[in-house]
Amino acid sequence: MRELLRVPGGEPIDLSSYDAAATPGGPADKAAGVAATARMGERLAGLQERLWAAGSAGDRRRVLLILQGMDTSGKGGTVKHVIGLFNPSGCRIKAFKAPTREELNHPFLWRVMKALPEPGEIGIFDRSQYEDVLIARVRELVPRSQLGRRYGQINRFEQSLVDDGVVVVKCFLHVSYEQQERRLLERLDNPDKHWKFNPGDIDERALWPAYQEAYEIALERCSTDAAPWFVVPADRKWYRNWAISKLLSEHLEAMDPQYPKADFDVEECRRRLLATE
Amino acid sequence: MRELLRVPGGEPIDLSSYDAAATPGGPADKAAGVAATARMGERLAGLQERLWAAGSAGDRRRVLLILQGMDTSGKGGTVKHVIGLFNPSGCRIKAFKAPTREELNHPFLWRVMKALPEPGEIGIFDRSQYEDVLIARVRELVPRSQLGRRYGQINRFEQSLVDDGVVVVKCFLHVSYEQQERRLLERLDNPDKHWKFNPGDIDERALWPAYQEAYEIALERCSTDAAPWFVVPADRKWYRNWAISKLLSEHLEAMDPQYPKADFDVEECRRRLLATE
Repeated sequence: MRELLRVPGGEPIDLSSYDAAATPGGPADKAAGVAATARMGERLAGLQERLWAAGSAGDRRRVLLILQGMDTSGKGGTVKHVIGLFNPSGCRIKAFKAPTREELNHPFLWRVMKALPEPGEIGIFDRSQYEDVLIARVRELVPRSQLGRRYGQINRFEQSLVDDGVVVVKCFLHVSYEQQERRLLERLDNPDKHWKFNPGDIDERALWPAYQEAYEIALERCSTDAAPWFVVPADRKWYRNWAISKLLSEHLEAMDPQYPKADFDVEECRRRLLATE
Repeated sequence: MRELLRVPGGEPIDLSSYDAAATPGGPADKAAGVAATARMGERLAGLQERLWAAGSAGDRRRVLLILQGMDTSGKGGTVKHVIGLFNPSGCRIKAFKAPTREELNHPFLWRVMKALPEPGEIGIFDRSQYEDVLIARVRELVPRSQLGRRYGQINRFEQSLVDDGVVVVKCFLHVSYEQQERRLLERLDNPDKHWKFNPGDIDERALWPAYQEAYEIALERCSTDAAPWFVVPADRKWYRNWAISKLLSEHLEAMDPQYPKADFDVEECRRRLLATE
């Protein structure tokens, strides 16, 4: 999965050539996909426990899952269905909104640093530092020269994370223009989903080509060896959940975290404990 | 369940008269209990979504679940099995450890305030402000006069939370002395669980009577109408999970959060959206 969805980096990307409804490497259909994801749950939770246990004994490694994508691409759904497979006490989730006044009074990576996972944890960013080269580019929130520097700043920042033991997994949830319309209409048609809808979503949708271009530039410049980008076709929710579960599973298996050995005398503790009867 | 497990407050409590292996109001056996808890999951997640949705539209209400109990009483297991039923993005989990130097340089409620849930969220404290009248009492970490003031400070603090829309659910996970020994031995017998064991746990166990007394005093003085304590028998893990799920379910149902009404013109948005085709 890692090789299949990985963005090469350093070369121009044409997102329109990526089929958002594709299911590369995935199960045959929805039923099989949902079942396969559920089956992965226990394995994922087991790997997470080992990561956490290792972290409690000095292993500095942790995971950072970054989710980016247009409205309705399923960032929130991924947290619910994929991160829901893990033990919540080992997950550190941060949803980045429009920056606050305090955040704007700091460099753009400031609020990102504050939300990083600690050793043993799985961090999840619903949006991230990439907003600062996406909406910031489309809406021209900063001068072009400043924007241009940010790609390199992001790459150096991510390299420093990797150097410190963070395994960075960046997923672009690729939804099609047509599928976004269907999902926005669903929200409008169901009063229980009105709270998820914001009229501003339509204004953003009108800027679709500009956003696609901004994503293409970010994927090209920031898919590095240290922290590659993955394009996850997201028109089918079951595939999106399966693919991200699989990506996390592959990364955790490669990390191969181990339960730490006891740093105390087990036999002596057993004797002392039995003496408390 | 709320009435069944609630501590009256204001009157002396004898924890030894509470059977830690009891299953008051619960399903007949483990199989039935596990199934009943799983069945509650969907309902709980639905109530949580409504709470979150309401919070996004100005409803300030949120839940704070406080978990206290001796080592091995299952605070972590509750987070894994009960909080795991919820959407993790709406949960704010904080495990309180021994206070850091910075935390000690502030009033004891300082670090607690920083970890509170925001509107729409379900906050979970694994340990809490009560450590400051439990281990602080048993280990004599502060002068007795200062300790004595803390019960009132906690009550006033919790009242202020309630006044601000926080529904506080305080659970004492009541494990027996014998069951704690079995669980500590299990940890020693399984190398994959050694990381959960700390030789200091045996020293704390030796202070069992002093801890029980400290809990009795805290339950008596701090089970208030605004924020009552519940004693959850915790020798049977399936009952503990079922009972806390049930308590949360009852509190959420009483809150009865509602999806907010659209604050925009739905028909106009539909027209604008269809025009983007």
